[in-house]
Parts: sequence; structure tokens; C-alpha cells
Amino acid sequence: MSENEASKSHASPALSEREVQAWDVETDVVVVGLGATGASAAIEAAEAGAAVHVVERGWRGGGASAESTAQLYLGGGTPLQKACGFDDDPEEMYKYLVASCGPGVDEAKIRQYSDSSVDHYHWLTGHGIHFEPAFVPYEVSTHPGPGQGLSYTGSERAHPFCEIAKPAPRGHTVLKDGKMSGEFMMQVLMAAAQEAGAVIQPDTDGERLVVDASGAVVGLVARFRGERQYLRARRGVVLTTGGFAHNEEMLRRYAPALLGPTSPIGPEIGDDGSGIRMGMGAQGAAVRMDAGCVTLGFAYGHRDNLRGILVNAQGQRYVNEDVYQTNHGQIALLEQKGQVYLIVDDSIYSPPAAGEDDELVSWDVEVAAVAETPEELEAELGMPPRSLSHTLAVYNEFAAKGEDPYFHKESVWLQPLQSPPLAAIDLRVGHTYYALFTLGGLHTTPGGEVMDVEGNIIPGLYAAGRTASGIPAQGYNSGLSLGDCTFSGRMAAASAAKRSA
Amino acid sequence: MSENEASKSHASPALSEREVQAWDVETDVVVVGLGATGASAAIEAAEAGAAVHVVERGWRGGGASAESTAQLYLGGGTPLQKACGFDDDPEEMYKYLVASCGPGVDEAKIRQYSDSSVDHYHWLTGHGIHFEPAFVPYEVSTHPGPGQGLSYTGSERAHPFCEIAKPAPRGHTVLKDGKMSGEFMMQVLMAAAQEAGAVIQPDTDGERLVVDASGAVVGLVARFRGERQYLRARRGVVLTTGGFAHNEEMLRRYAPALLGPTSPIGPEIGDDGSGIRMGMGAQGAAVRMDAGCVTLGFAYGHRDNLRGILVNAQGQRYVNEDVYQTNHGQIALLEQKGQVYLIVDDSIYSPPAAGEDDELVSWDVEVAAVAETPEELEAELGMPPRSLSHTLAVYNEFAAKGEDPYFHKESVWLQPLQSPPLAAIDLRVGHTYYALFTLGGLHTTPGGEVMDVEGNIIPGLYAAGRTASGIPAQGYNSGLSLGDCTFSGRMAAASAAKRSA
Repeated sequence: MSENEASKSHASPALSEREVQAWDVETDVVVVGLGATGASAAIEAAEAGAAVHVVERGWRGGGASAESTAQLYLGGGTPLQKACGFDDDPEEMYKYLVASCGPGVDEAKIRQYSDSSVDHYHWLTGHGIHFEPAFVPYEVSTHPGPGQGLSYTGSERAHPFCEIAKPAPRGHTVLKDGKMSGEFMMQVLMAAAQEAGAVIQPDTDGERLVVDASGAVVGLVARFRGERQYLRARRGVVLTTGGFAHNEEMLRRYAPALLGPTSPIGPEIGDDGSGIRMGMGAQGAAVRMDAGCVTLGFAYGHRDNLRGILVNAQGQRYVNEDVYQTNHGQIALLEQKGQVYLIVDDSIYSPPAAGEDDELVSWDVEVAAVAETPEELEAELGMPPRSLSHTLAVYNEFAAKGEDPYFHKESVWLQPLQSPPLAAIDLRVGHTYYALFTLGGLHTTPGGEVMDVEGNIIPGLYAAGRTASGIPAQGYNSGLSLGDCTFSGRMAAASAAKRSA
Repeated sequence: MSENEASKSHASPALSEREVQAWDVETDVVVVGLGATGASAAIEAAEAGAAVHVVERGWRGGGASAESTAQLYLGGGTPLQKACGFDDDPEEMYKYLVASCGPGVDEAKIRQYSDSSVDHYHWLTGHGIHFEPAFVPYEVSTHPGPGQGLSYTGSERAHPFCEIAKPAPRGHTVLKDGKMSGEFMMQVLMAAAQEAGAVIQPDTDGERLVVDASGAVVGLVARFRGERQYLRARRGVVLTTGGFAHNEEMLRRYAPALLGPTSPIGPEIGDDGSGIRMGMGAQGAAVRMDAGCVTLGFAYGHRDNLRGILVNAQGQRYVNEDVYQTNHGQIALLEQKGQVYLIVDDSIYSPPAAGEDDELVSWDVEVAAVAETPEELEAELGMPPRSLSHTLAVYNEFAAKGEDPYFHKESVWLQPLQSPPLAAIDLRVGHTYYALFTLGGLHTTPGGEVMDVEGNIIPGLYAAGRTASGIPAQGYNSGLSLGDCTFSGRMAAASAAKRSA
């Protein structure tokens, strides 16, 4: 008896092997989903000598990774960092990730990831990924421009993180014709998977896992163009179907604070939590299911906006504006109830350039109010008397001296806002874009083995990328998902491939 | 192979009935834990005609309920509300609970609870609970004093809740010799359970559930004074062991934001999540495991403190001070990083009365700074120039007019803070008491039936009180836990008692 048979928040029950009449496919490793995680898993398993069969829901692979900006968070002293003149160290990377990805990080995973990052860089470049050795100067942009492969994609240089770990740029971006291209990155990884010998079967939706009498996972039930298909996995099934940002019922149950005001990223056919639900149906534990990456990219492509100030409904500043856009999304949504504005003056304000072809840069600007004086702007916004006007007066006084005693914004972004008119850009939820993807998922070892609620490893079951809870436990920096996806996909597949058939 | 055999964050695996050689006890309904939930469950099941056996870890029952202030959140027009001259309505109660207990509430449970609240009042008084028909005037205290049975125990009259639902006092307090007494309340409920015929076995720790081949729960493995004991439950097992505030490993895994700065309430022998872990070990799903009630009771017993102002590390006000103490705990800890102070002047400041015998009222006061002027206080606290001094100037200007355009504190609490010296009472985490209990738990129907991750009801398994996720999904008002515990304990036990043996 089910509470609601059709509910998409429920686990997908595993099928007993006894119910399988005949296997349609027999292989060593079945990979479910062909985003960056699945492609990396397929490469790793195939190169380890395993027969690999990848099922992918779409007519071709790519997933959310193909729609991404192709940034991978790597460091510890990669060749790209060195070529651009930066020192980095696995220990500094570890300290930064622990501080910025918490609370409640998996320290063993962050340790493994930081220590292996240079190796992982070589693995990526060895499989056709190229990073252009040019650094995006911090003063120019927090995001890469044409031909620039390295940039800051987190809050490394911002207070308080700059006091916790030595900053280094760790955003490694894949470019195609000088532009960030997740699609191109996926073409390279999918080609490498085929080259390595993985069989890729599109138009196929994973439905349920198949378990033997002991509970070990031995296969997958899938649907291929309307027909049910049974795939036997002699060594293991690797779940790489992404998160659940597109599944409203799962968000409502597990992450209600993220529901409603946010916009899920990635293609709509994906990220419905199918892998997490299949894993749970085979007794996998799900953890940190309330966690999500929420991005408020008010300075994306409009770097001068960092010279403005962010204020809440009481006209108060609440954060140093130069922390990264993923911090901004979480802080604005969860700590300020999504009621925030960016205040700029005429010297900063720039409407989107006409004919802008980067849709991320031609960010929709909704102006909430324009006024000649702070007092008028305050009144226009319905803020209390002496709120925003005081904030501006104090900010300007210190900015003129290159100081921010309130929130310690880096001095390069400090200038008085005193060229009228003043404008309030509307960053309230419902008035701008809060991008969401989920961070919670199956509970895995650093080797990608899925654990049950008792902490036992479920033989034959592996998960990686956003289907698992990984490096970004609660907090996020750009590139961590693709970095974690490609790396954890490899770790899970390596574990599966070496398991006795 | 287990990740860590000794981990207290893992589920406790159920035992197969085949492994049970002989039953030591055979009964209809086994209740695990004897707090308010377990006692109410035992009464309900026994009065429905079931043979009931209660196992309790301690040498007598009581649990966190016995250490509580004995407040039950009831309403909808109870006899006590009427006797004190208040109208209330289940619909207003429903609206308030939905607004204050979210996000992500279980609306069906709140509907059932609001609609049944008057009935539940009669059930309680029918079993010996007495509520003294005297109301604590709001202007005097948000907490009951001697002989006062009814009070506000939430934010009903505070902005913005007062605009969402018609306020009514719903805190129904059990008094003993004029004092709030959870211990007395538990004596009454435990006596009623024995009166109804329930067998109560102390010194007994529930360890694992016993399941039959279909997965239905048929019994309990317990440890009684060092000896293992097998209890057969013909109709069902009701888990009522509280939450997991005393289990650091579970907090780290499921609710890391609540770990560390908070102090768990309730006796240390309880609230280690044993019931949740037993339920998970029998395939029960756990939901909202990140949720907790965090109380910052800065006005408890010091009602004039509501005339002060709460400020953050930047000297900014961030909330109307007259919201309830459970709101304050969550906001201070989760939105203000636990870095807050209460600013009072000499007309408000009162040290704890000498010889105070209510330990909750003789609240420890740590004064962070004292100064003659706002500017000096600001400097003493290390706040930036023109921060707290501005906040005080603006607050005082409007308070003199009986207005709070920033946060809408009720005018009864508004007065300028202008009698030197000024003091900052230290409410930072680590400097005062942030009381914690957890709100996440097993996923149950309104009838207390535990569901698995697929939404299927697990036959024979019931959970209630803080072992389940209930009325307070994320937000909290005092009395909701005892209200929910006693009510949900009854609902679960009624479901168990009527199940076919």
C-alpha cells in the first residue's frame, strides 16, 4: 500500500533478481546517465578493462554539464596555475574547501580531492580537455573572457576566507573558440568514453535497480524507447543521473527552503532525482538532502556591480559584495529572506550591451527605483527613514578612504556612490534569477561505494556527481560540481571495475 | 562490512523473526520510551483494549518531558481559553501553525491537530491534567507565573504573524504548587497509563526491531539490566524515544548547522536518536533531519529585556525583539552566525534576583560592555564607527513616538534607551545558552504509521513525538512539542491498537 503511488518523492523499489526472466544486456559495469560524471566513469571503467554499458535518457548525452559554463575547480599546483604564475598547495586548497563547503563537510573526500587534484588535471588533459594558459585578472572580472582558462570562481580572496587559506585561482575553464563551452567539454568526454570502448545507449531511462537475495546490486531495469530492458552488471551499477532540482516533490520533502523562489538549472529532462531514488530503493542512504547551490549572479558580466552595495529590506548592508555569487545566493535567500537590492550610482550602472550573445551576461536588469538623492531612493523603495541614506553616507565616507570596516570588501571595489542618479537594482526573489541545483544525495565512501543507513556498503552499487553527497556539502564555489563530478565519477567507476565479477 | 561499527549515526538493523528463539514477553502493543509521547500512547492503546507493554531506558519514566516547563500548545477554543476570555478558532490556529512551523510543513498533520485540539484538551483533562484558569497578561510576561495556566508561547501577536492569523494565547501550562512542572505532568500521565493497565518496565533499552519475512514489525529486542530480552508485539511497536539532540554523530551527519554552539535539552540518557535509528533499520524513512528548535531566551524571566534592542556584529538591528524565543534562537544562530547582543539601558537592566529558585529564570547574564554613551559602547564592542550609535539614535527617535518602522515591534515594548549607563548583554554563541532539540525524524502518516522511502506503510511500525517529523517541521513555538507528543502518541497508539493481531 503506497501513500501516493505516483509520488516522485519516493524511492524506486529495487527488483529481485528472481523476477528477471532474461537479461537483454550483460556487461561488467552499467553507468546510468551520461553527463560529466557518467562520461568520466565510463572512461575510467573501460580503461580499467571492464566492459561498460552507459544508458542515457536523452537522445544524446550531456546533461546539465553540457549546459554549464565548463568550469572545473582544480588546484594544488596544476600546470595551468603554474603557467599563469600562481603557486598553490593541496593543503591550502583543503583548508579553503573545508571553510567554504560546510558546515558538515566530508573531510576525507575533500582531503582526497585536494591531494589528487593535480593528478586529476593530468587525467582530464590526457583525455582531450585543454585549458588555455591565460589568467583573468581579478580586477577585470571574476569570470573568464575570450581565451582565458584560469580565473577565481570562489571567495578565495574575499573576507573571511582570505584569512583562512592562501588564495589561488582554481577555476579551470574549457573554452571553444574562446568561449566557455560545457557542450564542447561534453563532446570531448563523450568521445573519450567511446574511444575507450564504452557502449553508449541513448533514449534509455533507468527505472529500478536489480538486487540479488543478499541485497547486492546485480543489474538495472531500464526503458528503451518504450520497451522494458534488463541489463546485468557483473561488477556494478554506477548511478550518475544528477540531482533533483527539477523534482518539485523531492524539493518539497527534502529541501523546502529551496522550493519556489529558485530556478533549477540543467535540462528539464534531467535532475529529477531518479538515481537517488533508485539508490534509496536498493537501501542506499541519502544525506544532506536539504543542501543546494543557489547562485545570485548580480556581477556576472557586470563586474562594476561589485562597486555597488547590497542592502536588505531595512536598507542595511549585510555582506561584503565581493564574496562569490554562490555565497550571495545562499545568503540572500536563506538569511535575508530573498529581499535584497543592489544600489549603484550612475558611474557604475550599465545596461546590458545591445546584441550581447552570451545569455548569461545579458542578465535581465529590473530597476526597482531611481532617484537623485539617497533619501529619495530610500523613500521610493519603501524603506524606513534614515536607513539606506545612512548606509550610503557611512559607506561613502569610508570608501573614499579605501576602507570597509563593516564587511571588509577588498579595496579595489571601494568607491563612493555619489554620481546621481542612484539606482536600486531589484534582486528580490521573483524579480531576478536565483539559479538552483541540489547538493544532497546518496551517502558514499570516497571510493563512490553507496552505504546503507547502517553504514554498510551495498555490494555492486556506486554513485557519483550530484547523485551523491560530495565535496560541496552545503556551500559551493563554481567549478566544484564539474570538478567533483569528473573526479568522483572516476573513483566510483574504478571501485566498480576492480570488483570481482 | 561496516564503515564504522561503533558509529551512533547509523541505523540499528532489524532482526529477522527467524533469529528469535523464544519470546520473553508477548503483548499487543510495545511502546518504546516513556516520556509524554510514550505515556499518552500507552493510555490510548490500553483504553482501546490492547495489552500494552512499555519499555523505558531510565529507572523511571519522564524523559525530556519531565524536565520541561510543561507547556502544551492547544487552541481552537479550549475551555481554558474561554475561561480566560479568549476566542479562538481551529482555522486561525491552523493558519498560524502553517506560517510559523515552516517551511515545508505537513499540512495534513497541522489540519488534524488544529481541528482536534479541543478534543485533545478534554482527553488531557480527562486523564488528570489540570490547567489553572488564569491568563498571564501579555504586557507582564510571555511566560506563566504562579497560578497562571494560559499564556502566549509563540509569536502570535508579533509582526508579521499578527497579520496572518488572529492571535490567541495557546500555551496551556501544567502547574504544581503554582509552578510549571513537567515532572508533575509526567507523574499524572504515567499514573494514568498504569491506571489504564499498561505494564511499565524500566531499566530497559530498546535495541532493534524484529521483522517478519515480509518486513512487517513483529517485536522488539531490548536489554533489561544487562540481559537481552525479546518482546513480541502482536499489533505493533510504537517508537517514542525522542529526538537526537544528545547524539553528536547524528547531528554532524544530519544537522551540522546545529552542532557545537548549542546545548541539548533533556536528560543525557535520552534523545540519542535510538528510536529513529531503530525505525530506519526496519526501512523507515527519516525526513527533515536538518531541523531543530533553537531557543535563545533572553527575555525569559526578564521581560523588560524586550524593551532593549538586539543587534548583530555590525551594530544593526535584525528582528523585532518581541518575536518568540524560539524564533530568536534560529534567527541568531542561522541568519546572524550567532554574533548578537542585547543592548539595554540602566532603566531596563536587572541582574538576576538573589535567591531566585527557578533555574530557567535565573538566567546567566554575561555583560560584554558597559558605557556612558552609544559611541563608547560601540567602540567597546569593536563595532565599526557610526554603527550601533546610529542604530540607537534612530531607534530612540521612533521609540519616543511609539513607532518601529524598521521591524514593527509592538508599541508596548518601545521606549528610548537613554538612561546611562548602556550595557551590551552578550548573546553570542559560547557566551549564553542556545537550547536545542531536534525536530526531524521518521516519516509518518497523521495516524502515526511509519512509511518507508517508497511511501509504503511498514506494517506494525508506529512513531510519534520527536521520534517522528511532526507539527513543528522547521519552526517552533513553545508547547508544540508536548502538544504534538501527547497527541501524536495517541494517534499512533490508536492505529496500532486497532490493527489486527
